Amino acid sequence: MSDPSILERRNALLGEKAPIFYNEPVHLVRGEGVWLYGPNGEKYLDAYNNVPAVGHCHPHVVEALTKQASTLNVHTRYLDETILNYGERLVGTMDESLNRPFFVCTGTEANELAIRIAREATGGMGIIGTNNTYHGNSNTVMQLAYGRLKPKKRPHSPYFRYVPYPQLYRPPAPMSEAALAQAYAAEIQVAIDDFKKHNVKFAGMLICPIFANEGVPDVPAGYFEMLEQIVHEAGGVIIFDEVQSGFGRTGAMWAYEATGVVPDILTMGKPMGNGHPLAATVTTEELANKFQSNQRYFNTFGGNPVSCAVGAAVLDVIEDEGLLDRVNSTSAHLREGLEMLQKDFEIIGDIRNVGMFFAIEMVKNRFKKKPAKNAENRIVNSIKDKGVLLSSIGPEGNILKIRPPLPFTTDHADIVLEKLTECLIELSNDQ
Amino acid sequence: MSDPSILERRNALLGEKAPIFYNEPVHLVRGEGVWLYGPNGEKYLDAYNNVPAVGHCHPHVVEALTKQASTLNVHTRYLDETILNYGERLVGTMDESLNRPFFVCTGTEANELAIRIAREATGGMGIIGTNNTYHGNSNTVMQLAYGRLKPKKRPHSPYFRYVPYPQLYRPPAPMSEAALAQAYAAEIQVAIDDFKKHNVKFAGMLICPIFANEGVPDVPAGYFEMLEQIVHEAGGVIIFDEVQSGFGRTGAMWAYEATGVVPDILTMGKPMGNGHPLAATVTTEELANKFQSNQRYFNTFGGNPVSCAVGAAVLDVIEDEGLLDRVNSTSAHLREGLEMLQKDFEIIGDIRNVGMFFAIEMVKNRFKKKPAKNAENRIVNSIKDKGVLLSSIGPEGNILKIRPPLPFTTDHADIVLEKLTECLIELSNDQ
Repeated sequence: MSDPSILERRNALLGEKAPIFYNEPVHLVRGEGVWLYGPNGEKYLDAYNNVPAVGHCHPHVVEALTKQASTLNVHTRYLDETILNYGERLVGTMDESLNRPFFVCTGTEANELAIRIAREATGGMGIIGTNNTYHGNSNTVMQLAYGRLKPKKRPHSPYFRYVPYPQLYRPPAPMSEAALAQAYAAEIQVAIDDFKKHNVKFAGMLICPIFANEGVPDVPAGYFEMLEQIVHEAGGVIIFDEVQSGFGRTGAMWAYEATGVVPDILTMGKPMGNGHPLAATVTTEELANKFQSNQRYFNTFGGNPVSCAVGAAVLDVIEDEGLLDRVNSTSAHLREGLEMLQKDFEIIGDIRNVGMFFAIEMVKNRFKKKPAKNAENRIVNSIKDKGVLLSSIGPEGNILKIRPPLPFTTDHADIVLEKLTECLIELSNDQ
Repeated sequence: MSDPSILERRNALLGEKAPIFYNEPVHLVRGEGVWLYGPNGEKYLDAYNNVPAVGHCHPHVVEALTKQASTLNVHTRYLDETILNYGERLVGTMDESLNRPFFVCTGTEANELAIRIAREATGGMGIIGTNNTYHGNSNTVMQLAYGRLKPKKRPHSPYFRYVPYPQLYRPPAPMSEAALAQAYAAEIQVAIDDFKKHNVKFAGMLICPIFANEGVPDVPAGYFEMLEQIVHEAGGVIIFDEVQSGFGRTGAMWAYEATGVVPDILTMGKPMGNGHPLAATVTTEELANKFQSNQRYFNTFGGNPVSCAVGAAVLDVIEDEGLLDRVNSTSAHLREGLEMLQKDFEIIGDIRNVGMFFAIEMVKNRFKKKPAKNAENRIVNSIKDKGVLLSSIGPEGNILKIRPPLPFTTDHADIVLEKLTECLIELSNDQ
């Protein structure tokens, strides 16, 4: 389907092990709204990409980008109104305590800065994450993925601890939801105590509030309240990484709104510039001042007028096109359709979603819940051949991920349901 | 001159300690070529900014940006020709051993990745930098600035060592240039031995090949050859950070060309996208394969088609407008003018340049070379009021930095010389 010479050139330039999707990779040349196109007229419904969140190549965003790039693009050590207009508007979408943004370029940079702020504010170094996550690719932030990657050779930092992520689907033992919440929360205290035992002062806990990389688990009620109490009581700060969950993905502007907890530091990125490298770390006045009193932070590209104009245009589209409502209506429709499918296909063990972030967990058997890894891989590749782009997540890679651009409609959801049904029938016929 | 309410809004949103230039900050609303404009018709000659390297808002770059942003912007896990065309062309400007690019978004990310590659390739953790430098703002990379920032409270990583940067202007003791080169090189061996003493395996040395933040010192002949031998003999890799020095700044495409040393890893950023957040880490096939065999690296925005189209447009302009020749002719002219000035003004202790990166070291007295800190601060602010934007660098902040966009002509250089002369006269009259 794709020109083989492109793959050869890619392997030579970027390496055979450079991450790529699908057994037969997809070649793309154009994007528009929720659609992507190949060089020979191939057409794909994009049910995967969260970065072009307001739609591929959205004309309003491109217009803002072009206009500002033709006018002025400088760093933030001069006075510029673009960053003020955008920054004030951005923090206006959050709890009033979160009023001090630092603009950076990537989610990795946003989390790096969040850790710097947490450490400066607390005087501690210890950071807690979950045991199956990913928060970026730098030396420090990738320490948070150690619980997931389980590398053999790399030295492990003494400054990180990992707790099991909370979930209802595979609890450690049969117990009530309240007891489960307590059991997971107790693990946070264990990690804090272990830091103390090793003379590492606790700085904070960094998590994604929808546990996106963990497979958007249903979280036992009461967990977040206990997390807040334990972390604050131990003198740490709460960092929510909303790089995946922010900007309307969950049907609210911010995922933290549904947790009942306002974080001390909020990081954001991916959808923020609809593909333009834009990210931010937002914190409270108290933490920002503590940080800036002792440390200098400057980011060459962060907060430049072009990035800020693009960010503002993304906010325009979210508002003007009513994308939060769209997420809520389309996700309800898709969930209903998936639950119908679950009745017919034993392999669908669990359906979870937070707005337009769906996780469909494939299992060999609903009672034992043994992950059906190959099934997921076959579906991802075969639904691609039917013109729908999806992917997978989770500790076992057996969770189908549906996470489209936000303008996805119920009609688009119906296409996904139709093609997914075809894939599930083919799969059953083969077994 | 600028609306005070803008500064108030900035202080409230970004913090009073957010880095800003000048005693009375400059408000900018438009840029074109080597000129920047304020809201009330103020016009500034930009003799400072290296990021908009091919000129502010260059129409060819903006056109490429707009065209690609209207067509396709996705991550690199699909096949896309934009990254291949740009990547092949980019590595084509380098020594043939440097043939494997990793695209990222910022210089910080490029140096983070360089350190990850060096550590994976060597199995070591120890990194050597200079004692007065800056390579980025993340937790790990900012360790390289510790020799400069000398923080009191922050825990210091056991994995970094600092050596004095080489220079002819302030040698540790009077000696021949050859002996000086040897003395500075010997410090590298001392750092390596100290790692060994503390059971830290050496991974590599990371420096800017023009020592930009150190004040572009004249480097004693022979230093780089010895550095190469010592680092390689100890099993380390050589990382050159060309985030400031690359893409024609020195009059060659890459600053390493003048050192006689081809690094094992080359990082680049700032001018690469003329203000668009684009950076890269380029290494050898051997190091890239070692790294990719054991570690996964993915960068969401890195290498997206829009960034690559912008990067290619920047290369077009460097070639089409003959900017390397321009750098060589304008820098020779500016250097001549500054040397004339030095005859009249005792305060100019030393004039150094590498292409269009000038450092003018201000001293109270040429014999004792005591830094004239206040003079530099007064000149930077007063030449700004005369319509020329400059800044300062160096361990004592007494070095005037002239580092304009590359299209700077001899006529622009004459404006800088004229206004600088006026400032120096005013300074002498006051003393």
